[in-house]
Formats: sequence, structure tokens, C-alpha cells
Amino acid sequence: MNYFRENIEKMAGYVPGFQPDAADIVKLNTNENPYPPSPDVLEAIGGVSAERLRRYPQPLADDFRRAASEVLAVPADHIICANGGDDLLTMCFRAFCDGDRPVAYPVPTYTLYETLARLQGCGVLEVALDSPDLTGDLADTAAALTIVCNPNAPTGSRIEQETLARLAEKMSGVLLIDEAYVDFADGDCLELAEQFDNVIILRSMSKGYSLAGIRFGYGIARPGLIEGLLKVKDSYNVDVVAIGAATAAIRDQRYFMENVEKIKDQRQRLTEKLRGLGFEVNQSQTNFVLAGCSGLGAEGFGVKNIYERLAERNIYVRYFDVPNLADKLRITVGTEEQNGKLIEALKGILETIS
Amino acid sequence: MNYFRENIEKMAGYVPGFQPDAADIVKLNTNENPYPPSPDVLEAIGGVSAERLRRYPQPLADDFRRAASEVLAVPADHIICANGGDDLLTMCFRAFCDGDRPVAYPVPTYTLYETLARLQGCGVLEVALDSPDLTGDLADTAAALTIVCNPNAPTGSRIEQETLARLAEKMSGVLLIDEAYVDFADGDCLELAEQFDNVIILRSMSKGYSLAGIRFGYGIARPGLIEGLLKVKDSYNVDVVAIGAATAAIRDQRYFMENVEKIKDQRQRLTEKLRGLGFEVNQSQTNFVLAGCSGLGAEGFGVKNIYERLAERNIYVRYFDVPNLADKLRITVGTEEQNGKLIEALKGILETIS
Repeated sequence: MNYFRENIEKMAGYVPGFQPDAADIVKLNTNENPYPPSPDVLEAIGGVSAERLRRYPQPLADDFRRAASEVLAVPADHIICANGGDDLLTMCFRAFCDGDRPVAYPVPTYTLYETLARLQGCGVLEVALDSPDLTGDLADTAAALTIVCNPNAPTGSRIEQETLARLAEKMSGVLLIDEAYVDFADGDCLELAEQFDNVIILRSMSKGYSLAGIRFGYGIARPGLIEGLLKVKDSYNVDVVAIGAATAAIRDQRYFMENVEKIKDQRQRLTEKLRGLGFEVNQSQTNFVLAGCSGLGAEGFGVKNIYERLAERNIYVRYFDVPNLADKLRITVGTEEQNGKLIEALKGILETIS
Repeated sequence: MNYFRENIEKMAGYVPGFQPDAADIVKLNTNENPYPPSPDVLEAIGGVSAERLRRYPQPLADDFRRAASEVLAVPADHIICANGGDDLLTMCFRAFCDGDRPVAYPVPTYTLYETLARLQGCGVLEVALDSPDLTGDLADTAAALTIVCNPNAPTGSRIEQETLARLAEKMSGVLLIDEAYVDFADGDCLELAEQFDNVIILRSMSKGYSLAGIRFGYGIARPGLIEGLLKVKDSYNVDVVAIGAATAAIRDQRYFMENVEKIKDQRQRLTEKLRGLGFEVNQSQTNFVLAGCSGLGAEGFGVKNIYERLAERNIYVRYFDVPNLADKLRITVGTEEQNGKLIEALKGILETIS
């Protein structure tokens, strides 16, 4: 007996990174921030009253919209709040895509886009990220929705704002710029959300603000897009505690910036140490690095083996068993201590190979 | 310029009940529990660590699944957790319905079902709730998904388990029994989720557990349905604080049952007082009553006027400007004090009419 839609029946679900509960592990597999959130967040959470818990939360998360509006210098009604960035991605697929309205994106990228396309039953138009005319190729797809993860996961690379401005101008559909990792980059594309009526910027509180646990993301766009997306949004999609936590976090910009600087510093040191071991590592604009292993003389051994040997040592990184990525490991930038343990473990593993 | 799908462009969004921020109001418009949640909930929220906040939450909310499994005596893998009951409703529409696979439900009922159908672009087959052969009529629709809100909003009425068992047996699609209000009813249909491979029971922590603010609902079904729904579920749809709060709440069954009894007691007293004023009030199986005003001799005055006069006094109830409901007010059962203020205000308003 089959009760499901055919596309649901056929698809495999998205597989999130392993989330072990144990405390004594080095967890560098899902791009969490290794440092705690601002102390103001804990205070906000502890201060939530029983009265607030029993009542429905603000449908539009007004407290957060006001705070983000001040920090980003965009009007509050240009902001839509979401139960994590993934919730906003889902809203966009449901608002813009269907069997006659495909999605386009450069690959490789965040694999959830493909999962959401299958869920929505829309076509997928993939363009190679390293295409010499990426914006031309993307505009030519005439997709209803084009997603550019920028900085991109898992490559860690970033496309300049001017390039995406040309794309927004040329294309006929909506351009969603997924800036989940922008906190660690050299620049952002926020201005485009004000300049163009077809651009949405996605932001997350999970990475730079250390709040993966509370699920809070948001979008910035002109009111024409925001109003349509609000029809798709669940009435009470973000809860009262999450609103309080996210609001406290974004208001504490000083803590946020110090936190981000520490990670960028660790990223540089981790990159150099991995290179020292023979890994190929690009300059990342995110809080992870993509470490290519093809130069290690370990072809017969395999990257998956390195991944598994690390896991045996309670060190978790991310391995994607797909073409183009099967010779690479995606490693979240951890604390100095965590990165040190990783490097030591890799040294030991590489010695047994050579 | 129109970027949205046609169904999105055409539809109006769901309008949630008014959520005023002011503290000095009597808020009986969105069926919140008037009493605070268990003290264990506040303790659980206050105890969330910075380490938990920075990490992604459990993808399947295992802590809650274990607790609910013990309380309900169903296996943990028969439970799927959701960001409020509405999140589970959305998953079901996305899993079972599309342009070729309609939804069916009795009317009048929770108006979100229609909104979700329009979002998903599926057909809607409505059957009159007071049909003499409701189960026959529903089974005849051959819908991919049939939703029965039970107890029903906004009528407050309930269909017996035996009747829905016959429906589950007869029908070809999935039967979703929305038990968001079941905590206040004389019985439930939980057994059907174990007996039939096509039944999903929806539960909410918003009503009986006083946790509307944290957004937590869940579904119970056999693994065949649960596994398919998990493909549609967002990876991290419930946050770490919500999991902790909901787990603490469901574990404190003694507090829960005392809380529910208080509301049922107030419901009876409110019902009698409203009848004393001339309202027609059915025996409700929920935490609200539907008060018919046609017997008040106030035809020329109108129910909407009563609603507005109450709002002027900072007393909010729910008015639905749709056929069949336009002569009724839906009133959440409040505390003794709140219900008393409502009755006094209604007395005053009715005196000015007659």
C-alpha cells in the first residue's frame, strides 16, 4: 500500500550531519560555532516568563525584526523570520517553484536545495560553479528561482556582489542569495536586496551567533517579495524563546564580532597546518575548510578511510560520497584545542598510510 | 512583475488570531491555556547550556520521543515531532497532496486546512460535518488525505473512535485525526494509530500543556507513515529549548491533569452563564465554547458588534466572518476571573441592545 506522492516515495530524505550526544568528542562535522553564544542570550532565555510560554508568540517576530532593522539598517518590514535558514529555503520553493517552474543553482553546493526541489516536484537546472560565464549560464536557465549559496558550501568560495548584481539584472526570476556563512566572509550582498525587487538575502543565526540549537534564520527583501512569502510562512514559525535569544544575540554586535574574528584567526592557522600535511585547502570565506586529499599519495587508501579513522578517535568531520567531493573532507573550524587534536590525529593517520 | 506561483499570488494568507502584546487584557481569542505551564518547564528552559545552544538540536527530538513513548505507551519510532501541530499539517499536505491528489475534510473546521491546500495546489473536497452519513461521504471522496479535527474547531464537538475506525477501514487514503484539543475531551483515538496503517494522530503541547509559545506538536502513526513523513520534515525542525520544555511538560502528568480539570470545570461554569444570558452553547469537548447569538433578539445589532464592543473593553474573543459562523462567537475558556469579566461585559452590552 502506498499512500505517498510519487516524488516523496522515490526520494531519499536529506541526511543531516551526524549529531552525537556524547560530550567528549571533537565535533567538526556540521559547521557549528565552537564558541558559546553571547551571555545576553542565556539571560534572555532564563528571563522568559510562564505567561509568555502559554501564549502564542509574535507571528512576525517583531522584536527580532526591530533589532535586525537597526543593526542592518534596513526597514523592519523588509525582514521575514524563519525557523532556521532551512525554513526560509522551504518557503521559497513553495512560493516560487512547481512542476512548471524550475529552480537553478551552481554545483557543487548545499545538497538540501536538491532535496527541497524533489519535495516540491520542480525541475532542477544545475550550472557548474566553475563555468567561465556563470552569471550568463544562470540567467539563461530562466528559472523561477535561482539560488546562489554565497559564500558557498562546501567549497568555501565567494562570488563578488557586482557579479550577482549583473545576474539579478539579467534574470527573469527570483535570486535567492544564501548568506548562511556570510559572517566569516570579506563582504556581503545585502545592498542587492534593497536595489532589486527580485533579490532575497538569507541569513542565519546558527553560525556567527552560535545559535544552531535555537533555529533562527531570516530573509531580507523588498516588501513585494516579503508579503508573498508571508502567505507561505507558518503563522507562528518561530517560538518565543528563539525570538528572545536571537534578538539578544544580534543586539550584542561587539561579542559577535570578537567571536567571528577568533574563528577567522583559527581558520587561517588550520588552513596552514593542513597544507603543511599535504592537503589542498582553498582560502575559505566560511567557518569550515574543504581539504583536498589527492596530493597525499593516499589514493589507494581513500579519503573515506581517513574520515573513518578520525571517527574512531572521536573526531567527526564531514565526508560527502559524491563525485567531485569524494576526495575531500569538509572540516569545521573549531577551537584552538579542537583543531590541534584534529591535526595530531591526521598526522598519526597519514603516517600509517605512507 | 509577478515572481510567485499563480496559486500563491491568488490566495490570501491565513490570518492568525490577534496577538496583542499588552498585559492588561482578557485574551480569549486564540484558545491558549489560561494557566502557566508546569514549573518543571521553566526549570528545563533555565537549565539549557550554552553548549546546547551552539550545537544543532536532535534531528528527531529523541528526548521528547522517549518521554512521550512512556506516557502514551506507544513505541518511540511511531512518533514524529513538529514545530507546532501546524508544522505536521504542512508535512502531511506536502507528503500526500498535489494537483492530482485532493484533501477532504468536514466543514466547518480549522480554516488552516484550506490555506494549506491552496499553498500545495491540491483540490479540496468538503463534506458537511452534520451529514447523516459523514463517514460514508468522506470515504466516497477517495481523497489522498482526509483530515478530521476531533474534537473539532470551532464547533467543539467530537466524533467517537468507533466511527472513525469505520472510516479508516473504508477509505483508500490517509486519515489524519487532528487531536489538538483532545486534552479536554472525554476520549481519544490514539488506538487507531496502532490499529491502522493509514491513520495519523496529531497532538499539540499548546493547549493542555500551556506551551503555545514554544511551538511543539507531534504525530503518532505506524512506521510506514512516519518514515515517509520524516523525508518531508525539516532536518532540525524543533529547537533544543522547545525539546527540553516539551519533554519536561509531558513528564509532569500530574500537573497536566490538574490543569485540564480546572479548565473543564471553568468550561462548565462559563457554558451555564452564557446560556443564562441567552446564548446557545453546545457541550464543548475543547478549551473553548462556541456561543450562538441568534436567540438574543439582537439580529439587527449583530454578533460582530458584540465582538467589537468587547474589544473596546479589552476583552478579545474570536469572530469568524463566514457563513454558518457569522452569528456565533468562539470564546476560549479563561480563568475564573477572566470568564467573570467577560460575563459582566456581555451583560452590559446586552442591556444596551434590548
